[in-house]
Amino acid sequence: MKKINIALVGLGQIGNYLFNELNKKKKDIELKTGKKINVVAISAKNKNKKRKFKINKKIFYKNPLSIFKLKKIDILFECIGLSDGISKKVVEIALKKKIHVITPNKALISKHGDYLSKLAEQNKVNLEFEASVAGGIPILRTIKEGLATNKISKVYGILNGTCNYILTEMENSKQSFSNVLKKAQILGYAEPGNPKLDLNGYDAFAKIRILSSLSFNKNISKQNCLMEGIENIEFKDIEIADQLNFRVKLLGITELINNKLFERVHPCLVKKDSYIANVSGVMNAVILHGDPVGETVLQGEGAGPGATSSALMSDLLSILRGNIKFPFGLSNRKRKFVSSYDLNKYTNSLYFRFEVNDKPGVLSQITQSLAKRKISVERLIQIPDHKNKKASIIIITHKTNELDANKCLKLFKTNKNILKVPTRIRLF
Amino acid sequence: MKKINIALVGLGQIGNYLFNELNKKKKDIELKTGKKINVVAISAKNKNKKRKFKINKKIFYKNPLSIFKLKKIDILFECIGLSDGISKKVVEIALKKKIHVITPNKALISKHGDYLSKLAEQNKVNLEFEASVAGGIPILRTIKEGLATNKISKVYGILNGTCNYILTEMENSKQSFSNVLKKAQILGYAEPGNPKLDLNGYDAFAKIRILSSLSFNKNISKQNCLMEGIENIEFKDIEIADQLNFRVKLLGITELINNKLFERVHPCLVKKDSYIANVSGVMNAVILHGDPVGETVLQGEGAGPGATSSALMSDLLSILRGNIKFPFGLSNRKRKFVSSYDLNKYTNSLYFRFEVNDKPGVLSQITQSLAKRKISVERLIQIPDHKNKKASIIIITHKTNELDANKCLKLFKTNKNILKVPTRIRLF
Repeated sequence: MKKINIALVGLGQIGNYLFNELNKKKKDIELKTGKKINVVAISAKNKNKKRKFKINKKIFYKNPLSIFKLKKIDILFECIGLSDGISKKVVEIALKKKIHVITPNKALISKHGDYLSKLAEQNKVNLEFEASVAGGIPILRTIKEGLATNKISKVYGILNGTCNYILTEMENSKQSFSNVLKKAQILGYAEPGNPKLDLNGYDAFAKIRILSSLSFNKNISKQNCLMEGIENIEFKDIEIADQLNFRVKLLGITELINNKLFERVHPCLVKKDSYIANVSGVMNAVILHGDPVGETVLQGEGAGPGATSSALMSDLLSILRGNIKFPFGLSNRKRKFVSSYDLNKYTNSLYFRFEVNDKPGVLSQITQSLAKRKISVERLIQIPDHKNKKASIIIITHKTNELDANKCLKLFKTNKNILKVPTRIRLF
Repeated sequence: MKKINIALVGLGQIGNYLFNELNKKKKDIELKTGKKINVVAISAKNKNKKRKFKINKKIFYKNPLSIFKLKKIDILFECIGLSDGISKKVVEIALKKKIHVITPNKALISKHGDYLSKLAEQNKVNLEFEASVAGGIPILRTIKEGLATNKISKVYGILNGTCNYILTEMENSKQSFSNVLKKAQILGYAEPGNPKLDLNGYDAFAKIRILSSLSFNKNISKQNCLMEGIENIEFKDIEIADQLNFRVKLLGITELINNKLFERVHPCLVKKDSYIANVSGVMNAVILHGDPVGETVLQGEGAGPGATSSALMSDLLSILRGNIKFPFGLSNRKRKFVSSYDLNKYTNSLYFRFEVNDKPGVLSQITQSLAKRKISVERLIQIPDHKNKKASIIIITHKTNELDANKCLKLFKTNKNILKVPTRIRLF
């Protein structure tokens, strides 16, 4: 039986879980691929850190780069998770040495995926990153293989489990954003140190970039587009949305509009009885529109070491079975450049929440500003806060474009009766 | 560029749509695989039948077997759809001649899949049947590849679009089974001639057998198990379910219980606010429990030529990309035999509907019979039909096993006041 040497770099929550899985599933892998895997090198900063699963200290390397000098490696797992630095370096060297690479690192792939996939192609090895998007859901494989000849027009979904957990839990527990965030950190659903990259939409946006690239057979976009997180969502918004029969969800959306690429991540108001509104907690969901397949939905655990390991192991089996593939489904030479859609044209109904001084004339100032930008009001709710002589004004507009909405929001900036930047949530 | 010769046998709704797709997607296939496909032979009974898409009559063969004599073929699509006869013969010959085979034929695979996959393995060619289960949803690929090293414990879902359409439409239009069936036949959602194989659960059961086999790395089961269709569901049942906050769905379920295989297809009462209750119309959905991935859900169009072609084409691309695979994910020599779970132990709450003469004592006879088999009543509704001196009695029981339920149902047979075999629907 052919023996395959494996190296594993990065022994955080995911790397450590994966190490255990690799050892546990050896027999199963032999059964399904006819190959015997052997983890010959592991690397992390701290050899003696307390870890959930026991590691083999005999094969431990403090410096990941020394692995390459000392061992013959066939497949390398990169589980450090940086977009640059040592993550990039390890992957680069591996590919150049004709070592297959598997990584869950969305930051790396969404930034350097084009370059790294070229390297892989040149060196005739695989670069696999199923785990980088939507955890255990095999969405990349589904796009590359299961729906291979479909013309995909749109992909959207809930791509960040941390945000979805927080939004779900705010609704269920009726608690503030910061309280729920603390809870999420304790439960391990949010980074204890710096949860910013989840909360500000960056994580979901990185995933959207990878999804676009695969769905539309194009290079990874470098353009900045619309990226908003959930940091400004207050319990008040969730409560009002609830009354209006909506739920707040952070959605990532990518589509081709007249052959222009439109990628965005932002909170949305979604109807409570819609499918996406009922994807709760840390679950992820991806919805694709393809021709001729129609609408396809995939849902599963979007994060956590179990789900992530499941995806990493599927990449491993694909390589062991001898499936040589282009990382993005077709040769880099064939991937297109697609220019970006003009964000100003993005048209939605909007939810605005204004926190104002409860003085005569304020409401009229707001509605006048809206009228100036031809934004018409569909629904208006005023919630008084008599004690503090303040009020919340919630407006649901008819459809309007980003250009007008942004110009209108600028008008409010100079209004001293509007106490903070109004909250805007787009209706989906 | 390498040229690949393709033959297509069977030009019904699916075969004809596929023929059009194969011609339409040539460029895309070249881009993704570096191979040029060419349909060199098509075969069907009637050359001149009116078809939605134009066929090339120059490559038409009335007898599918003559294709093999006249042309060099690399890949064959079998789209006739029989479980035996010419379908089996064509696939058999092709595999023996080292021709890759792709088929959406669940009847063939669920019956002869073990034998045919052995043939494929011996001849080192692929036998692909993604389209045989859940139409456009790439569920087989997901089990074989995307979730390859997961320990799957349970798979269930809505696997028959015809039944799901009928149940959904009965609820929405408040019409009888037979009226809605007629509508389904007009719309092309049910076979115009003989819809029996959809309605009696056979179609869903064939899919469940294929799913079990892949999920549990075992041979295809030959055992008969629990297979019930929706033919006995009346609008009355749907109406009462609705009042009780349930919906009726035909589910296919397979799981390993203490290493015994338990496959079944039957109508279920599912809670209205559950995910599965909200999969409507011709949609299919499959839910998997895997370790470590957790719960994974896939939903999409379960039937129709577009969705089916999407799956057939994904099989084609897999072959063209050179992915040589075992049809069931591992070598036939490694697939296990798993014995069957004892159906008598199957335990559920049950919904019974009795149609009775409205006479004193009937209700007491029914409850006595239930008590005899230690089946306790959780809920009872009696709906009088004064005009005809009849009544419907609906009973929701506490959990009981099949053995007791079946014995109890036998007791009712001799009761002349019970006018027909009681309707039983299991609660999910």
